[in-house]
Amino acid sequence: MENLERLAIHSITTKPWDLQTAVMKYKDAGVRGISIWKEAYEALGAKKAGQLAHSAGLDVVSLIRGGFFVHPVKEEREVRIARNLSMIHEAAELGAPHIVLVCGAHPNVRIEEARRQVAEGISEILPAAERERIKLAIEPLHPMYAADRSVINTLSEALDLCDYFESSHVGIVVDVYHTWWDPELHVQIERAGRGNRIFAFHVCDWKTPLEDMLEDRGLMGEGNIDIPSIRKTVEKAGFSGFVEVEIFSRRYWALDQDIWLGMIVDSYRKSV
Amino acid sequence: MENLERLAIHSITTKPWDLQTAVMKYKDAGVRGISIWKEAYEALGAKKAGQLAHSAGLDVVSLIRGGFFVHPVKEEREVRIARNLSMIHEAAELGAPHIVLVCGAHPNVRIEEARRQVAEGISEILPAAERERIKLAIEPLHPMYAADRSVINTLSEALDLCDYFESSHVGIVVDVYHTWWDPELHVQIERAGRGNRIFAFHVCDWKTPLEDMLEDRGLMGEGNIDIPSIRKTVEKAGFSGFVEVEIFSRRYWALDQDIWLGMIVDSYRKSV
Repeated sequence: MENLERLAIHSITTKPWDLQTAVMKYKDAGVRGISIWKEAYEALGAKKAGQLAHSAGLDVVSLIRGGFFVHPVKEEREVRIARNLSMIHEAAELGAPHIVLVCGAHPNVRIEEARRQVAEGISEILPAAERERIKLAIEPLHPMYAADRSVINTLSEALDLCDYFESSHVGIVVDVYHTWWDPELHVQIERAGRGNRIFAFHVCDWKTPLEDMLEDRGLMGEGNIDIPSIRKTVEKAGFSGFVEVEIFSRRYWALDQDIWLGMIVDSYRKSV
Repeated sequence: MENLERLAIHSITTKPWDLQTAVMKYKDAGVRGISIWKEAYEALGAKKAGQLAHSAGLDVVSLIRGGFFVHPVKEEREVRIARNLSMIHEAAELGAPHIVLVCGAHPNVRIEEARRQVAEGISEILPAAERERIKLAIEPLHPMYAADRSVINTLSEALDLCDYFESSHVGIVVDVYHTWWDPELHVQIERAGRGNRIFAFHVCDWKTPLEDMLEDRGLMGEGNIDIPSIRKTVEKAGFSGFVEVEIFSRRYWALDQDIWLGMIVDSYRKSV
């Protein structure tokens, strides 16, 4: 039986709860960390949201999510860079060590150009991140999102970006949902570990069939992903941070969220 | 303006038509090749289906589709191998130079074991394929199918399998839908070319958003894929075979298929 010392939950996983409720409920369930989505802290403001979590004894693990650097119009790209700069400041207020970057993609931008825009976006915000000591955690997204969410789709590609920036403030997220299929998964996690690039580890599961490409993620254990084996590689590579449960699911959001939280804790114990 | 000498269409692209109708209509439209799905030739039998196509002056480009080697139960895996062996014989009767392999996946088989079963399946059928001079064209499928259709999800992985078998009868399919997002796409096509491994080239497009993960493929030009640039790399790598249009789409199957065929020919001229 795994204890809960390393368990964190993303606020979006219990989307029907506001941040105050989520913090209280997570604490009562023995969860030790919370990853806070921008949508969840905006009502309170980042500073108060951070205080709320900390006074309940929860670590703020990640701020989610920056990035979205890709757009055909230059002015809109500048707006997005400004938004990322604000979020770096908000991460500091929140007490989050890093921002997760969903790098961006756009149906009207060809993939090579989109990848160039991602590198440009990160280079624009990196100096501020280093100044505020907020790390940038590049999350490669599943290739099924390459046309509309992120053109960074493999750990290999994300780590190439890290190598390009050569900053201790640029690293990666390993999310099992996005990467489980990758024949290079374990090798690239080892590579990430050698460079101290693993900033976060996200879990959920891959259901078959998916009823929705975005909001039908599975609870750990109900799908096809060998989570314990990935976790083992991540930890062998030197990562000792939180295991973050990040599940978007209309099906589970429709449940009583107390029951849902119980299911999450239970499946974390059994299947992670 | 591209002429139609290199244009082939998969029978499933005009699924409402039976094979006789498809052959006649393709011919009248100036299409030069047809790729025949098992479901489409079964009513006639492979031999008659091949004669039908050839007497209309169409090349039979591919038999689709063998593979599906992955299953938790050994007896079922043996059934599938037997089915592939029959299809090798049917390909010879049809006059198709190769069978496309959708290698298989199963929600209850972990990915590493599934990949082992794929290698085993191919090794079981390869001697018969060599004897009948039918090539096996491994088609890497998009990673979104890794839990239920194929655990071979990148060109790199498919080419590693080719290297493992070291047979002139094992090669790959480049399908833009499955591979367009891959940062190694062009490099791996070049690698495939050096080994004479490119047996087929399939086109369609990636719509945003996808309304269905299986049957909502786009017509060339309506999505995000830079098809001309991929085609250029494929041809530079030495491939001079047909460009095969393979589109599963409930939306397009619901159209008058004569109009749909006109749209295909038109978009081939403009966007491939």
